[in-house]
Parts: sequence; structure tokens; C-alpha cells
Amino acid sequence: MKPCLHPSIVDTNELEAYLDLAVQCGYEWVDVPLHWLHQEVERTSSSRVEAMFQSRRLRLASFGLPVDLYADEADYVRDLALLPERVAFAVGLGAVRCTTFLWPSIDERPVPYASRLARRLRQCAVALMPHGVRLGLEYVGPHHLRNRAYPFVQNLAELAIFLEAVGAPNVGFLIDSFHWYTAEESTDDLALLKPEQIVHVHVNDALEEPSLAHDQRRCLPGDGRIPLASFLRALYEAGYRGPVSTEVLHQEPLAGSNAERAQTAFERLTQMIANVKGDC
Amino acid sequence: MKPCLHPSIVDTNELEAYLDLAVQCGYEWVDVPLHWLHQEVERTSSSRVEAMFQSRRLRLASFGLPVDLYADEADYVRDLALLPERVAFAVGLGAVRCTTFLWPSIDERPVPYASRLARRLRQCAVALMPHGVRLGLEYVGPHHLRNRAYPFVQNLAELAIFLEAVGAPNVGFLIDSFHWYTAEESTDDLALLKPEQIVHVHVNDALEEPSLAHDQRRCLPGDGRIPLASFLRALYEAGYRGPVSTEVLHQEPLAGSNAERAQTAFERLTQMIANVKGDC
Amino acid sequence: MKPCLHPSIVDTNELEAYLDLAVQCGYEWVDVPLHWLHQEVERTSSSRVEAMFQSRRLRLASFGLPVDLYADEADYVRDLALLPERVAFAVGLGAVRCTTFLWPSIDERPVPYASRLARRLRQCAVALMPHGVRLGLEYVGPHHLRNRAYPFVQNLAELAIFLEAVGAPNVGFLIDSFHWYTAEESTDDLALLKPEQIVHVHVNDALEEPSLAHDQRRCLPGDGRIPLASFLRALYEAGYRGPVSTEVLHQEPLAGSNAERAQTAFERLTQMIANVKGDC
Amino acid sequence: MKPCLHPSIVDTNELEAYLDLAVQCGYEWVDVPLHWLHQEVERTSSSRVEAMFQSRRLRLASFGLPVDLYADEADYVRDLALLPERVAFAVGLGAVRCTTFLWPSIDERPVPYASRLARRLRQCAVALMPHGVRLGLEYVGPHHLRNRAYPFVQNLAELAIFLEAVGAPNVGFLIDSFHWYTAEESTDDLALLKPEQIVHVHVNDALEEPSLAHDQRRCLPGDGRIPLASFLRALYEAGYRGPVSTEVLHQEPLAGSNAERAQTAFERLTQMIANVKGDC
Repeated sequence: MKPCLHPSIVDTNELEAYLDLAVQCGYEWVDVPLHWLHQEVERTSSSRVEAMFQSRRLRLASFGLPVDLYADEADYVRDLALLPERVAFAVGLGAVRCTTFLWPSIDERPVPYASRLARRLRQCAVALMPHGVRLGLEYVGPHHLRNRAYPFVQNLAELAIFLEAVGAPNVGFLIDSFHWYTAEESTDDLALLKPEQIVHVHVNDALEEPSLAHDQRRCLPGDGRIPLASFLRALYEAGYRGPVSTEVLHQEPLAGSNAERAQTAFERLTQMIANVKGDC
Repeated sequence: MKPCLHPSIVDTNELEAYLDLAVQCGYEWVDVPLHWLHQEVERTSSSRVEAMFQSRRLRLASFGLPVDLYADEADYVRDLALLPERVAFAVGLGAVRCTTFLWPSIDERPVPYASRLARRLRQCAVALMPHGVRLGLEYVGPHHLRNRAYPFVQNLAELAIFLEAVGAPNVGFLIDSFHWYTAEESTDDLALLKPEQIVHVHVNDALEEPSLAHDQRRCLPGDGRIPLASFLRALYEAGYRGPVSTEVLHQEPLAGSNAERAQTAFERLTQMIANVKGDC
Repeated sequence: MKPCLHPSIVDTNELEAYLDLAVQCGYEWVDVPLHWLHQEVERTSSSRVEAMFQSRRLRLASFGLPVDLYADEADYVRDLALLPERVAFAVGLGAVRCTTFLWPSIDERPVPYASRLARRLRQCAVALMPHGVRLGLEYVGPHHLRNRAYPFVQNLAELAIFLEAVGAPNVGFLIDSFHWYTAEESTDDLALLKPEQIVHVHVNDALEEPSLAHDQRRCLPGDGRIPLASFLRALYEAGYRGPVSTEVLHQEPLAGSNAERAQTAFERLTQMIANVKGDC
Repeated sequence: MKPCLHPSIVDTNELEAYLDLAVQCGYEWVDVPLHWLHQEVERTSSSRVEAMFQSRRLRLASFGLPVDLYADEADYVRDLALLPERVAFAVGLGAVRCTTFLWPSIDERPVPYASRLARRLRQCAVALMPHGVRLGLEYVGPHHLRNRAYPFVQNLAELAIFLEAVGAPNVGFLIDSFHWYTAEESTDDLALLKPEQIVHVHVNDALEEPSLAHDQRRCLPGDGRIPLASFLRALYEAGYRGPVSTEVLHQEPLAGSNAERAQTAFERLTQMIANVKGDC
């Protein structure tokens, strides 16, 4: 279990500067949007992008599933056909995790929505299998996002059941501390997971109480009230050993410079993880 | 496409008399509740029950999925473990179709309900595969059954999408004329089906208009207003060649004697099917 | 378990006469080469061919897998693409069994031969699944066919292991009494089978001892020395309840008229089956 | 593509010293026998072993499939049942590759041997799927190992066909330069591979000509006559970006000290890889 830099805490979209910052702060893992990577490949080459990671001993922790799961069937099928090549590229940067999130509420009727989505996620997961990539699904907790006509998946337990519909062996959870907190879940909920079910982890913090915390008002790990030490310990005890990524969504600018935030997050997470390991 | 006697139009639960009646009327197919068969096996033997079918050249058109899909997990798993033996018995009577129906509305929340059910149906379908048995799911149309908290699957189109969640190749549709009528569907809806998607067919009639027709007030094919000739022609044109079963659910006694009803249904269906074939 | 007429005992290739003969002798099942059926469809229509079966209450017991498993990949793939339509047609005639045989010896190297064949059989089996059709593989016993460079599959036990490579749930055995006899197997070998593993059965007889019996010198059931009563009893006890088909390969003309052979085979098999049931 | 230290070039079985040596030489990847790791876990704890890797920024490149594929069924099934826990442990050390080799010749009859092995490899691969681990199969080239009764898999092309029997999406190749050389294959043979098919790579060298090279007389990469630059370029061009492991099997002691060998191998491979990237 090691910290992973997430672009949300850095005001840049310049890949090389982002990777340099990661290295300077001590990160071994980075999350990077696929479109940054594709732009850099366009500008230079895929070998050059690989070299940017390897020369810094950085690995791509995960990549967002590059498929529009909600498109009409023709567009979805086109995305699905392009998936293997896109996965191979991400795997070349060290990635073994692919992620996407699920809406907590929806305007479409739930049964057809869930059924179609389950089939599409299963097809995507099958396309990931030859590459050894797992698909992590993220449930979304903030209550203000429950504003659509019907609830969909709002917590870990509901996602666990939805995974029965997906029915693919390489699909599991992306656990985000903000969603865990706003879904008002406990460490016991995390303790039930098997290590291979936890595909990826987001770590961030909240200033507000669970029912009021806004998805775009997150703060750096340690700046809020989420019991992150317990959160990380539960994941560690469940067997998770991968990256924990600093996804801090926000609308208002975060305090400090890019370097300060990246450094602070790294140090705090490193300390929390050290404590977890010391305890276990 | 040939008529199949369904026990709902015969006031008996005596297996041998039921089979005799089928033969006398000209049926080659019968639907029989599994528990009738199991009782007869208990009383005599499975060989004896097989002989009862073979000596009459009757085949079991289908059997109800002998699994409680809504039980708690332990009970469900026990049913699933018993499924292969029960399937083998039914196959010995000529069955290659297994069926179950889906509720049109439910009190549980739809996404977990649909997800769990999809997984269980998939597991049952996998257990049927070695036996060459397909699983037909029946959607239920009458509006008065839409009285639960949430809608589930109410028509052919919704079932088609739910089948994406199930995701097993040997699962298809049980098409019932009453549900097709009350769901206010057209022959065009049936024409889209591939032959292997139609696992079984129920034929019966309605006196009331679609929105008022009560699930337990069905009448014999030809006694009501459902355009059964068109219904059967659409299924035939879609490639269906199997039994069409006289499932006539009712609370009030049906008019006539057992023999009269069985004979009337046979003759009317035989005539309708002859017309369909003549047209095609 | 009921007799099935096989075209090998009838010197004709005229479909209607063949079906008439089946009915006259009392058969409910017939095996018919797919190319007879396709020719008749060409000449008349598929509806007409269906009517030829239904009006006689005959069912197609099985059809040969219409795929060249040994073709180069492009031709194989073309056959595979055409398979669903061909299966749907055969299913419309009542078929739920598809069969093919395996060579007992081969000139190609065994590992690539077995590997490619396993993959192709698996793909064919997957294409059969939506139709509820099982694939029965026939091992071939006569010793004179062990003349190629390498042995492949020569008996039930070897086929059972090869099925592990195939790895599809709807693939099982076609058991032929001639191969069982020439492979010098016992009823104990058959008793180990589960009912769903026995997809189809061929019944015929041999005049020669097992090591000398020639594949093309078979005789009618009861005219030779194969212990067919034991053979059928073992299959019945294993749970098989389907057709037993009179496949009597021969080069020299068989004695008697078509009608005499078809009638004799029917009566003998009917008697044997009655004895089996009486014993069990 | 980066060098991976393999224990075969180091005369030790002391885990910590081995990992220290890896770090000192600049390796980021190590191959380690699972039994070393299990012994260390026994002696200390799994957390301690994880810390030994993480504190050095080392990752476990691969682990040998901890299943006896040739055991009788009961023992095999027991191994298979233990597999998930063993995989989870290896994944905690960074592993995403599991490997096993195939014998080039065998004493058992090839078809049952290949069929059973294909089924077992498929089952193991299925157990690896939830962990995102791929299974790499290694073909074995040296001619002196073709001494058993029957040939099995002796080169890349034969392994490619055997993979059709295995039929699992997460199974691919472990490519070893010694086997590629002794199988007398070309870079064109490697160029046909898709990136995800190459699960792991062994790099070593040979002093003897292909037909004479002995499996246990390998030498350090660069000390022999295998065109390793071409070998690595072909793999790179095929899209492989993972570790290349210094598996140098030998009976006679290798020249130099552990540190000298590990350092030399690292430097040579690093230079070869740099050249490959420069060329591409």
C-alpha cells in the first residue's frame, strides 16, 4: 500500500511536469487521465511516453475505462472494439487497473438501466482479461447526487449485489474514502472484502458531515473528519496492497501550491500507511 | 407447432386420467406440474411414470424451474444443488424446456432484486446446459399485478433487456398470449424474435380489454378477443415450431366438462395452426 | 428409449418413402442425413419438410454436425457462421442432438490435432447452446481403422479425457454398440456415465470377433454376437431414455427388402428395450 | 522492458541478501521461488516479506504456478483449492504473472496427456482471473529433452496451438531465449505475437549450436551466440514492456561472484534494451 498522485490535486495538465512532481514528492504510482497520455503520444510517440514513466520509475496506477457505457449501441460497440488497443497501451505504462464509476441515481428506469449496464461492463471485463487488467467499479456516496428520479448504486453493499448481475471474475470495487464516508459505512463493511475484490482506492477527506458533504468539496487527506487511519487499516487488513490515490475533487481552488499539496498528501498518506503496517 | 394440454383447463390432479384425456383429444404434448410427477414416482416408480408417457406417445412440453429464486441464499443453493437430478428426470419424459415467470412489480428495490435474480437465473441456466434444456422466462402483463412498489418486467421489450443481465445463451422467452395482449404488444414485437429465443408458448384468451383483463379470468383460446391467429402466425413466422400450451388461469370454474374443454382447445388450436401454416 | 430408423439399413435416398417406411414399421424417431433434408427443402420448402415429419408424428433424432472440422481455418469459420441457421432448421424437425465422430488414428501429429479439434468442437458447442442442442461425439472402435500414424481416440475412456480438452457443458458421447464391442469394453464402462452425458446411441451387430470386426461389415441388431441386451440395459440404467438408432454400415448389400430390415430392426429393438425395462 | 534478477545466477537461498543484491545492481524486478517466500513468511510474517520488497522498491516479476499439474486428481484438486490464497500473497508482492513450463516430450500417450493438462491449466487460469494474474506457459527447446516416448510441445507454434485446447483468455507465453534458440525459431516467429500474449520473458545465452545446447549449460546473456539483441527487439516490437529475467540454468558453477554476475547481467540487459528502444 503506497500513495498514488492523482491529478485532481495538481493544477496542471502538462504530463512531464506532473510526473516530475510525483517523483520529487516520492510517489511511485500516478493516476493520469488517458487523454493526457493520448495527447502526449500524438505530440511525441508512445515509446516516448513509456520512457517518461520508466525513467522516473513511475507506474500508471489505473486508467479510466475508455468506453462510453451510456452511448447508443453502435457507439458503444465501436468503443468496445477499440478497447484492446487502448488497454495494451496503458498496460505498457504499468497499469493493471481500469476503473469507472456508477451513478448513485438515474433518470432512466432502473431495471433496464442496470441490465444493459451489467452486460456492457461484463463485455468490457472480458476484453480486459487477456491483458490481466481488473475493472474496479466505484460507488458514489454524496447525498446531493441522489437527486435523480431513481436510486441506482449508493453504497458498497448495493455495489456488491450489482456485481452479481455483472458476473465477471475480474470485476471488483474502487473504494473511495469520500463515498465510504458519505454512504455512512463502517470499517466492518470493508473488512468483509477479499483482497482481489479491491481493485483501486481513492483517499481524500471531508469537512462536512456525511449527509451534507458535497462531491466537489473534498479536501486533502488529513484536513477533514473522515477517519482515514481506520479506513486504510481496514483495507490493509482485508489484504489490499496497491496504490491509494489522492483524488480530491473540488470546485474552489485548493490551498497551497501544486508542490505543497502533492508533498503534503504524500507525507500524510505515507505516515498513515506506516502506522497501519505497524499496527498490523 | 402443435397444441399442448395444460392442467389449468382440467379439474383433476390425477396424472393417469390427465394423460389419457390428452391422448383421447389428440394432444402429443402435455404440461404437467413437477409435483404431480414426483407424487406418482413416490407412489410407483420413475420407470412407471416414463412408461405412462411413452405408451401414450406423449411428451412433457416443459417443467417449472424447481428452484425458489427468492429464497434466502442457503435455501436457494440447496435447490440449485438438487436441480441436475430433477432436470434429468424431466428430460427422461421428453422435456427440453424449463420455465419460470417474472413478477411485473415488486416490493424490493429494483436494482438489487434484478441483480440477484439475474445471477441466480444464470446459475440455473448453467445447470441446465449439460441436459440440453433451455430456460424460458415469462413476462406478466395484467395491469392489476402492477400493484407493488416498483415495476420490474412488464413486457417483451423489458424482458429482452433483462436477459442482457442474465447473460446465459440458453435462456429465452416464454410467450403467453394473455401477457402479450395485456402488455398491448403487436405482432411486430414478436416478429423480431429469433427461433431459438422462443422457448415455450402459452395460448389463452381474454374477454376484457387489455388494461382490465385479470390474470385469473382467462378463457379458452377462441372464446375471447385476443387476435390469436395473428399471435400464432407471428410466432410461426419467427421460426417457433414447438408446443403451444393451453394455460387458462381462472378462479371461477370454466364451462363444460374436462373432456369438452380439452377437446375444444385442441380443435381450435389445431385449426388455427393449420391456417397459419396454410398462410405461410 | 425407443428405436430410431437409420438410413443405412434402407436402400433409398427418397425422403418421403423413407419416412413412410418408418411410420409403417412403428418408429417414432428417424435419423436423416442433412443433405436429404436440404435437397427436399430446395425442391419444395422447409414448411413442407416440417409437415412431412409432423404429419407422421416423426422426430429427427439427430443431425450430423454440418461443419468441416478438418478444413483450413477460413473454410471452418465459414461453416461455423452458417451453423446457427442450419441448427434452427433441424430443431424445427424435433432434433435436439447433433453428432460427429472422431478418427481412431490420424496422420497429423496428435497434440496439435487434438488441440485444434478441441477448440473447434468447443466453438461449435457454444453455437448449439442457444438452441438447446447437445453435441455427441462418437469414438470409433474397429481395429483396422487404427492404421494411421498415430492413435487418437479409440474408446470411451479416451473420449472421456478428450472431452476435458473440449470443455463445453453440452458435449457428450454418441455410444455405438459396434465401437463399444470392438473397443472391447464392458457394461461397467457404460454404467459410469451420467444420463446427460449420453447424447445419442447407435445399435448394430457384428459377426466377427472384436479385433477383426470391420466397420463396413455390420449386421442388424440381433444377427451377430454383440451382447446388445446387456448394452442397452447398461445405457438404460445409466439413465439414457432417448432414441437408439439402427446404424448398420455395410458394403455388401444387406439381406431382405428395405421394409423387412426396417421392420425386423424395429421389432427386435422394441423387444430388447421392453426386456430392459422389465428387468429394471 | 527492464531486467529482472533471477535466482539461478546467484548462489544463495537467503532472501534478504538476494533482494539487497538486486537493489545494489539496479534491478526493479526480481523472480523468487515461492518456497523461499513461504519459508520467510514462516520465519517472520507476510507483512515482513512485503516490507522487504517495498522498502527496496522491488517487485516480484512472476511466481511459479504452485499446483502439481501431473498429480493424481485428488492431489491436484487440493492444490487448486489452495491456489487463490497463494496467488493473493504473490500479488501482494507486486506479481501479475504466474508461470509454468511444458515438457517437450513425454512418456504418457499424447492425447490424454494434452487433454487433461489443458483442462487443468484452464482451471488454474480461471482461479487466477479474479486476481488479474496471467498464466505464462513456457515451451522447452533443447533437443536432448526430446528423449521421451512422444513429443509434446517443442516450440512457439506448437504452444500456440496447444493454447487453443486450454482456451482461457488470460493464458499466454513465457518466451525464453534459450528455448527460442534451440527450437531454431526466428524473430518473425516472435513478431506475430500480440503484446498481451507475452506474459514473461527469460533471457540467457548458449555457447553451443542449437541442436546441441544443453538445458543446464546456459550462460549469461552476452556470453554466447544467441542473437539476443534481435530477440529483445522482436519482443519489444511485438509490444512487450515487462521484465526480462536472467534465468541461467547451469550445473557447473558460473564464473565470478554473485555480485559480478548480477551486475554484469543487469548492465548488459540494460544496454541491449536501450539499444532496442533507440532503434524503435
